[in-house]
Amino acid sequence: MSGTGLVSLVGAGPGDPELLTVKAVRRLTEADLVLYDALVEPAALLHAPRAQRFYVGKRCGRHAFSQEEINRALVGAGRRGRRVVRLKCGDPFVLGRGGEEALALAAARVPFEIVPGVSSAVAVPALAGIPVTHRGAAAAFAVVSGHSPAAFLPVLEGLAPGSLTVVVLMGLANRARIAAALLGRGWRSATPAAILAGVSTPAAWTWRGPLAALGDVTVPDGSDAPAILCVGETVGLADALAAPAARLSA
Amino acid sequence: MSGTGLVSLVGAGPGDPELLTVKAVRRLTEADLVLYDALVEPAALLHAPRAQRFYVGKRCGRHAFSQEEINRALVGAGRRGRRVVRLKCGDPFVLGRGGEEALALAAARVPFEIVPGVSSAVAVPALAGIPVTHRGAAAAFAVVSGHSPAAFLPVLEGLAPGSLTVVVLMGLANRARIAAALLGRGWRSATPAAILAGVSTPAAWTWRGPLAALGDVTVPDGSDAPAILCVGETVGLADALAAPAARLSA
Repeated sequence: MSGTGLVSLVGAGPGDPELLTVKAVRRLTEADLVLYDALVEPAALLHAPRAQRFYVGKRCGRHAFSQEEINRALVGAGRRGRRVVRLKCGDPFVLGRGGEEALALAAARVPFEIVPGVSSAVAVPALAGIPVTHRGAAAAFAVVSGHSPAAFLPVLEGLAPGSLTVVVLMGLANRARIAAALLGRGWRSATPAAILAGVSTPAAWTWRGPLAALGDVTVPDGSDAPAILCVGETVGLADALAAPAARLSA
Repeated sequence: MSGTGLVSLVGAGPGDPELLTVKAVRRLTEADLVLYDALVEPAALLHAPRAQRFYVGKRCGRHAFSQEEINRALVGAGRRGRRVVRLKCGDPFVLGRGGEEALALAAARVPFEIVPGVSSAVAVPALAGIPVTHRGAAAAFAVVSGHSPAAFLPVLEGLAPGSLTVVVLMGLANRARIAAALLGRGWRSATPAAILAGVSTPAAWTWRGPLAALGDVTVPDGSDAPAILCVGETVGLADALAAPAARLSA
């Protein structure tokens, strides 16, 4: 009813609660209502002791709420003058559907803002000692959703071999098609590759090896940890950098 | 002399001091020594009142210190047991030479860590109402250095038209070659494009228009503000999202 409502679409970063931004912490502290996704660390929610908190991510592999339902909840709460934080892992605009929620809020004339976060697409490789760019190795990188071949194949089939670092989110199940697309495009079979799964969780595991072997990597029994695939010469730097970078999560 | 030295390679985010991470603030607070780059906001340094602070970025368009000199300073201070923050705008591994400094520290066996930051490559477009990914518009994005045609041409000439959002850092001077490379690859001349310059500075300016016009954009007199170029269907979302997203810097 009041005019002071604000919906903040907030990136929670890659997991470590210390990688929240100062602004994310402030918005959580002020919030009346927090809607949060899978992969948001419980420690982040401790910044919002006075807010109602609702989990709107997947349960048992299925979305408990449709995107349309979440949009309606955000619009409704904003209209009621509430201070809402929509908390997403990583950055809200990096494969996080933040744009869809922002459009719904804009169409309903509900005040909203974007609070960017540390993207997992850059920070998770960094944690593993992989700089997504490095002078002499890659002056560019691409971040690609690995969820749907219809979306990733046109992108991957364009990427000039060795010209950049490829970071694939949500691509573990499609690792064989992803590797085949790059090899088919002419990437060297020995190009360094990595799988970085479940970073900052007890289920964390990683694999490193040549691109030619990426498609055949065996996923540890029962692991459904989200994983990031990296391919490119920069992945080879992890030999020198992996150990100290592990302090990231300390 | 003591064994407690630590060199932290820290991302300062895209400018707004509230987009520093909690960990960046803590490391600054604890620091004995801060080496910082151009584009780091003075407000960020206020978190390090007890540290010695040295500017090691460009002066009058030229590097005042070589990368080798900066590496030596970091190694030397770490060996003397100091707590050092190497503060870079954006993220240290996104075209920030963080990898070179990390390798120098690893080779010298000086304890170091990476503290990822909010990357300007994602957050500056967000500030302008441009989500780098959006369902139905782009399931991927590429971040490319626009500094050297030898580096960006092989990347841009591969990118399948319309398949992703292209974000070019340090590419303002080469905007004509960048636009020509994409058009030559078959990108539609009407593809939405933007130039986002000097975000969060008094010299800020932006331009939006079709890709075909990007190469001929006139830079405001005397502006040497750093600029980000964006190309792709997601840039068109700024029509609906630009105004509220401007609250980013509030």
